[in-house]
Amino acid sequence: MWKSLLSLRIMGKRKSSQRMDFKAYLEEKRRVVDKALDSFFPGTIEPADDLFKAMRYSLFAGGKRLRPILCIAGAEAVGGSQNDVLPVACALEMIHTYSLIHDDLPSMDNDDLRRGKPTSHKVFGEAVALLAGDGLLTEAFSLMARGSETHGIEPSNLLRVIGIIADAAGCRGMVGGQVVDVQFEGKGGDLSVVQFIHERKTGALIKASVVSGAILGGGTAEEINSLSVYGEKIGLAFQISDDILDIEGDPALMGKGVGGDIERGKLTYPSAVGLEESKQFQMALVEDAIKCIESFGESAEPLRAIARYIIKRKK
Amino acid sequence: MWKSLLSLRIMGKRKSSQRMDFKAYLEEKRRVVDKALDSFFPGTIEPADDLFKAMRYSLFAGGKRLRPILCIAGAEAVGGSQNDVLPVACALEMIHTYSLIHDDLPSMDNDDLRRGKPTSHKVFGEAVALLAGDGLLTEAFSLMARGSETHGIEPSNLLRVIGIIADAAGCRGMVGGQVVDVQFEGKGGDLSVVQFIHERKTGALIKASVVSGAILGGGTAEEINSLSVYGEKIGLAFQISDDILDIEGDPALMGKGVGGDIERGKLTYPSAVGLEESKQFQMALVEDAIKCIESFGESAEPLRAIARYIIKRKK
Repeated sequence: MWKSLLSLRIMGKRKSSQRMDFKAYLEEKRRVVDKALDSFFPGTIEPADDLFKAMRYSLFAGGKRLRPILCIAGAEAVGGSQNDVLPVACALEMIHTYSLIHDDLPSMDNDDLRRGKPTSHKVFGEAVALLAGDGLLTEAFSLMARGSETHGIEPSNLLRVIGIIADAAGCRGMVGGQVVDVQFEGKGGDLSVVQFIHERKTGALIKASVVSGAILGGGTAEEINSLSVYGEKIGLAFQISDDILDIEGDPALMGKGVGGDIERGKLTYPSAVGLEESKQFQMALVEDAIKCIESFGESAEPLRAIARYIIKRKK
Repeated sequence: MWKSLLSLRIMGKRKSSQRMDFKAYLEEKRRVVDKALDSFFPGTIEPADDLFKAMRYSLFAGGKRLRPILCIAGAEAVGGSQNDVLPVACALEMIHTYSLIHDDLPSMDNDDLRRGKPTSHKVFGEAVALLAGDGLLTEAFSLMARGSETHGIEPSNLLRVIGIIADAAGCRGMVGGQVVDVQFEGKGGDLSVVQFIHERKTGALIKASVVSGAILGGGTAEEINSLSVYGEKIGLAFQISDDILDIEGDPALMGKGVGGDIERGKLTYPSAVGLEESKQFQMALVEDAIKCIESFGESAEPLRAIARYIIKRKK
């Protein structure tokens, strides 16, 4: 019996040292996140059911679940478990979804389509869309605050993570980046402004996703620091790939029109340094990110695959 | 020496048993809250300084600071101290301010004036105003999450309070009430709908303010429960007084026009049950609220004065 257990362990090791099946990994994690999001989603209250419908409509509109998956992968990279981070992972997706609803509003980017579907304000009207965004943002904090009660997360770790995520989402992070993004439309600006926007508008929450996972997964200070640099680099790479997709992407795959950035005079990497240099910079960022987590071994294989996926993605 | 200390204690007792100087109390607490809000306010980051200006503009536009003062008074009623609750008290004001900015937006109530000043979107434009609201809401959670670090608040108590406040502000609370308020404009509705709106749109955060103070101040379960009922009753009374001021108030004192509710066909208490019955109901609520905290003695005198003030206020 010991012999067979030993051979199982060796087989397990052999198997995990092969390159992982990343597509299957993403699908599995997406399923987990979708199920958890559904279970965490608050029950509707009459007569406010339009609000709950609007929150659900955007939350289940086919998102990639990149931030929750990064949070889970961050935890698993330091030996933590998926269950430790599920409320925080789902809260990150709620915050991301709120930001998309508000970005799409007429007073912001005025977008009619998102992921191939009419945007929230097109379906529910501006007032309900605005409030659905507010509702998702606030619900994210409610969900996280209950994480000790529901998932046994250590209270001071949980508070630390809530603070990091609030900073990444707020005026020093995503909201700050969005203000500058809107205000510099059509005005041009140098690379430092583009970097300010990208690091905050997209980068900050992506970085916070990995870092939160690492903290809740029980990572050491050194591990958390490495994953923070990893997150910073893939966050920036992700936004640059967004810029590139807006030029070279396939509208059918992306579920929205392309060329919008140029039309609006948005500050992007390609607009600041050209398409080729943007691609090279993006590749260098992904290489750097993978280097940051070299010492992590097999457990960080999903994070490496995510970094590579960021360049290859078509939507 | 013992004799003089004793006489001081007796004098102190005699003094505190007289009816308190409520005006001086409010002024003192407002000063404390304003100073704390200023010290907690995040430093601006170029080139996003319009965002920080807009957040500051609304946060320091002359608010009554009712919610932070209720939070402090709730803590003091159960023997806690002001210092224990300052981050949470200030976060409550940030959440309240965000809700006013979003309520005033063209797609919502489309108001041009608030507290005698042009509303945020009139000064900064719709996009920045929307984002200033998002920024304040998110900053509130950042501020609370750091309360253990900065003010030594016990982590599990802090998480409990963050959860209560998020629920009061979110889809089951303020945001839910606001959706119904907007959707029922001009459509009429019975008293149950008015109650739904008022309990959530205004009542929920007021109740959460007192309850948070009581929890962080170290109140017993029984004390917290009594203060929760107190908060519920004055919260509803406060919104009814808002409805009444919209009919009978002095625009010069209020810093905004009156009659807006009727013009828009808003569902209010007076529209549902008439002005006289609204006034009687409001008075009964305040009496009930004071009765709930009868057993608290001197330490709850500010809470009693706040309950009385709600009926008498002119703005």
